[in-house]
Amino acid sequence: MFTTNRVCAAPVKLCRARIDGVIRAILINATNANACTGEDGYRDAESLTADIGARLNLPPVSVLMASTGIIGRRLPIETMINAHSRLAASLSRDNGKLIPRAIMTTDTMPKALCISFNAAGREYHIAGTAKGAGMIAPQMATLLCFILTDAPVAKADLDRLFRSSIDTTLNAITIDGDMSTNDTAIILSPKSPSPLTDQRDLNAFAEALHAVLGRLAEMLIDDGEGTTKRVRVNVRRAACSDDAKRIARAVAESLLVKTAFFGNDPNWGRIAAAAGRAGVPLDEQSLCISFNDVPVLVNGRPLEANLEALTAIMAERSFQVTIDIALGDGEWSMLTTDISTDYVRINAEYST
Amino acid sequence: MFTTNRVCAAPVKLCRARIDGVIRAILINATNANACTGEDGYRDAESLTADIGARLNLPPVSVLMASTGIIGRRLPIETMINAHSRLAASLSRDNGKLIPRAIMTTDTMPKALCISFNAAGREYHIAGTAKGAGMIAPQMATLLCFILTDAPVAKADLDRLFRSSIDTTLNAITIDGDMSTNDTAIILSPKSPSPLTDQRDLNAFAEALHAVLGRLAEMLIDDGEGTTKRVRVNVRRAACSDDAKRIARAVAESLLVKTAFFGNDPNWGRIAAAAGRAGVPLDEQSLCISFNDVPVLVNGRPLEANLEALTAIMAERSFQVTIDIALGDGEWSMLTTDISTDYVRINAEYST
Repeated sequence: MFTTNRVCAAPVKLCRARIDGVIRAILINATNANACTGEDGYRDAESLTADIGARLNLPPVSVLMASTGIIGRRLPIETMINAHSRLAASLSRDNGKLIPRAIMTTDTMPKALCISFNAAGREYHIAGTAKGAGMIAPQMATLLCFILTDAPVAKADLDRLFRSSIDTTLNAITIDGDMSTNDTAIILSPKSPSPLTDQRDLNAFAEALHAVLGRLAEMLIDDGEGTTKRVRVNVRRAACSDDAKRIARAVAESLLVKTAFFGNDPNWGRIAAAAGRAGVPLDEQSLCISFNDVPVLVNGRPLEANLEALTAIMAERSFQVTIDIALGDGEWSMLTTDISTDYVRINAEYST
Repeated sequence: MFTTNRVCAAPVKLCRARIDGVIRAILINATNANACTGEDGYRDAESLTADIGARLNLPPVSVLMASTGIIGRRLPIETMINAHSRLAASLSRDNGKLIPRAIMTTDTMPKALCISFNAAGREYHIAGTAKGAGMIAPQMATLLCFILTDAPVAKADLDRLFRSSIDTTLNAITIDGDMSTNDTAIILSPKSPSPLTDQRDLNAFAEALHAVLGRLAEMLIDDGEGTTKRVRVNVRRAACSDDAKRIARAVAESLLVKTAFFGNDPNWGRIAAAAGRAGVPLDEQSLCISFNDVPVLVNGRPLEANLEALTAIMAERSFQVTIDIALGDGEWSMLTTDISTDYVRINAEYST
């Protein structure tokens, strides 16, 4: 899955052209996005993956590439190719654990986990790593996510399960609402003549995959630049799930809501106003809002605020806001952060 | 013209119900929005306008109301009614100049101007005042704008000219992308048996109206909470004007673009990325971006940055960013601000 930004980086274009084939390797670089670099940038990505392919005895089209970093600069091809021999020679089962740290840009900690599950009478594994949620850092503009599994899953199943799980994990987090030119999430599963087909086995795989992606999403939110809160925004009983999604997104991306979170302010008026401008049906007479289990607005009427309970909730690093629309059965949930003075400072102090 | 927010304040509902009639007075209050106050809040607005109407010998339905301030609290009806006799007694031609200051909430300066124009062989005037752009202040969530003219313009013409002028002035500014529950812009023109009908006269009126609204829009931007820049975002040659509008809005509301403005950083990569996610056709191979007259991206290729010239431009309080899509003849222009650490501090430190 790739960014839907119309301005997309050369490695994303390269992946899109190759992703239908058999993939054997992914070349990843940090600090240069190889975006807005035109045809030269695309040729750079081709050369680099061809060189890695040659060193590993793989056809070039079996090598993908993912880049993250500054937009608008050519990659330092020579430096990179000079490093390839060392890179190829160091490939080993153990060195996989170096990847989560190697792909960090302004991330403050590596993000990775591996979990196991049982299917078809044996144990399988899903390992995942990710870096940098949202365009949270100066031009280090990217969410990269790589998932590897030893479970053989047919391409169509893999595609479907990966997309639906990302929809409610990596695609349901927001830090600043900006979208990168380089967002890339790749899953690799072994090609096999006898993939998992039993529905129970596929369910076990999907559940494990969802756990990995969900935990990575939390790690990304917790490491957002300058953020101090992780807030789950739940929308219940909207007219449909798409409406619920639009309301959740409007609230989760509202700058005023996010600054209120930073200030430990249970400012439900900003939440109601953000929900109201989502462009979907909403009857303010039936609107309910609560922080964790403490209601603040019930059927459009403000409650006498239980300020002590609310202050205790908002002092936590992590809490939930629930918005009940009372119109239908559409539900959606998103993870968001606060926006702090540090976020602005970090993103303003960068100098092109 | 009123907020399109589904959560809208009682005075907005009251205005909508009355606006088709003849209007003789507007009651305005600051610091309490009378929003999310249910039927009680609507009855409060009815009582207050009825009381003012009675004191001025006007039918209640000829009195509009506009409120701005905290969401979710009842108006202090008794206090307000007690003040009405003094308010009604102080009505005078001279006291009109007190209005711009009286409607301020966290605005740091009153915003008002009056200009004259010639039509049908005599001089007419248009006076305007406004407060608080965007939800820039803690729950002081409102743009209120009041325009008075002595030029008699028929209702249909007035409506059409007001809407089209607001579209490119008050509706083409953004501070934080949040939309208020109370936004209200009202224009009053005298009812006359012989309104201006000659096209040249209407053009003169429209031009003067646009000048007043355009200048108020600039004053609102310049007084945005914690802002240090006024930036005009021009989009040229998009596929259509609606596409141009969506691109302009995506760029003008991007938190990363706005923090870059605050940091005096000519970070065109963030501008390209924001344009690319606007969801409209855009070919990155033909994209051009410039700061004032200094190009930074030409046909999708970055120029060697003229950092000295760019730094000089961005050090100004006001400058322009122009994005050329090279696809059609759609154009749009918006005024935006930077987002500063002060913006976050002001909006976080408020306590419900």
